[in-house]
Amino acid sequence: MKIALVGIGKIALDQHVPALAASPDWKLAATVSRNGSVPGVESFANLADMLAARPDIAAVSLCLPPVPRFEAAQAVLRAGRHLMLEKPPGATLAEVHHLADLARAQGVTIFATWHSRMAHGVAAAKAWLAGRSIRAGRITWREDVRKWHPGQDWIFEAGGMGVFDPGINALSILTEILPDPLRLTEAELDFPANRQAPIAARLGFAGGISADFDFRQQGPQTWDMEFSTDGGDLALRMGGNRLEIGGAHREGSDDIMGEYPALYARMAGLVREGRSDVDLSPMVLVADAFTLGRRNTVADFDFQRMG
Amino acid sequence: MKIALVGIGKIALDQHVPALAASPDWKLAATVSRNGSVPGVESFANLADMLAARPDIAAVSLCLPPVPRFEAAQAVLRAGRHLMLEKPPGATLAEVHHLADLARAQGVTIFATWHSRMAHGVAAAKAWLAGRSIRAGRITWREDVRKWHPGQDWIFEAGGMGVFDPGINALSILTEILPDPLRLTEAELDFPANRQAPIAARLGFAGGISADFDFRQQGPQTWDMEFSTDGGDLALRMGGNRLEIGGAHREGSDDIMGEYPALYARMAGLVREGRSDVDLSPMVLVADAFTLGRRNTVADFDFQRMG
Repeated sequence: MKIALVGIGKIALDQHVPALAASPDWKLAATVSRNGSVPGVESFANLADMLAARPDIAAVSLCLPPVPRFEAAQAVLRAGRHLMLEKPPGATLAEVHHLADLARAQGVTIFATWHSRMAHGVAAAKAWLAGRSIRAGRITWREDVRKWHPGQDWIFEAGGMGVFDPGINALSILTEILPDPLRLTEAELDFPANRQAPIAARLGFAGGISADFDFRQQGPQTWDMEFSTDGGDLALRMGGNRLEIGGAHREGSDDIMGEYPALYARMAGLVREGRSDVDLSPMVLVADAFTLGRRNTVADFDFQRMG
Repeated sequence: MKIALVGIGKIALDQHVPALAASPDWKLAATVSRNGSVPGVESFANLADMLAARPDIAAVSLCLPPVPRFEAAQAVLRAGRHLMLEKPPGATLAEVHHLADLARAQGVTIFATWHSRMAHGVAAAKAWLAGRSIRAGRITWREDVRKWHPGQDWIFEAGGMGVFDPGINALSILTEILPDPLRLTEAELDFPANRQAPIAARLGFAGGISADFDFRQQGPQTWDMEFSTDGGDLALRMGGNRLEIGGAHREGSDDIMGEYPALYARMAGLVREGRSDVDLSPMVLVADAFTLGRRNTVADFDFQRMG
């Protein structure tokens, strides 16, 4: 099946293009981007032009930042193409509800992806936690925005979500593996004085689960979850890729390259079965954190100046 | 049917108690409040005591602020009683999803009320707008927080929602009367430097609809909606109570006392039919505004000092 990729930036080149190159299901048939392109693949500067010129392309994968994504997503669905969305699936909950309704009306597939759910340890962690009672959980998600989003100012603009851009990966794993639904009870958000989105956040959930998200982590990067249960301890490290039970390595690896191939395999399955997959629970928790959270103002953030 | 009222503050005494006194369906059989009570009605200081002492009371109506409301709501449902919630139905979306799931599991009714949807002009406005194409809409919701929430600091605390406490009434009408789902495209929120919730907000929606919410309005209060359509102009004034078509008064009155009796009548109907009613669309738009909105810092707000 032929697919087009819209938004040829860092995440597209790092993950989507290699995943599609290795996919038995998909052929990357076109790209749409103002600046980027992929060697040997027809490129368009404009989505409408691609949709008009290439009726043979049945599916479109969007790698745009959340704010401009809606108009593109709507255009794809109105053109009767299947739609795959990078996380988060939109800038607002209402717009994703709208896209899901539109996909249903058009009879096409929409897949709101959460790549971290495809990490190597997630399914085994979910199976191990099922039926156990969680006493406490601690999520630590600390990474360097300068390394992962160099110069990407959109991430700190209104709607860019700031530290929730990586943090929502943790929430996508949590909402997948925990036996009970998560309920946010408190939140504290740190906004740089010169930015419109938080650079750090601390969240508290019912049942003794807490999360610490920080975008200013230099040196080693941390994407860890640790749970204490009535049946022992479980840890998921490396963004869900490495599972430890009782402190001993059980499953997985530090290699995160399997996530995007798994997403494209699932997209192919959804299209074949005529189904969609839009789970907004990670995004609901982010919206809840913005609604319920206390706001602190912290030091200005500048991509160029360290410290 | 016997009902208990939890949280005997201003909104309970102004609206719920008179509505129940006049209701053909309900008898106010108990109150729960640390300070307030209703003459001639058994009062409890503690919800758990009331639920234990009065198994004959089948339904409970909560008039608590959103943040402490969840624990009380959960206790009511766990005790197998029907539950009616003042707006907004909770401090977070996830907690209301949780309550809806719990009510379903318990086989009881949950009704997340939106009193403004019961205003006199709302049903006629919805009928008139159906099938018409809206070109532009302007919502102006400006009231004096000192008059309607005197000294209620909780409204400006994290999770208190600030100006969205009245603004969500406008959103509850909009989501009821508009032919198409609302989609927020931009928002600007004004936070007093000494508070955690906004005192004013300006929202933009797809389709040329905008909203101006302000909690600092002295003198005349304004709760107006004006729409221009391909079939003429419609205005809803007085919080949905007064309908004008083409500038001429069509329906309704300035009397807002009919809203709460209508809510209790609907609650009685839901209980009789074994159904629930939880529409979160107004709250989704508030969460979207907090997530997407730009934040401004404005002057300190003090309930005592005018200006």
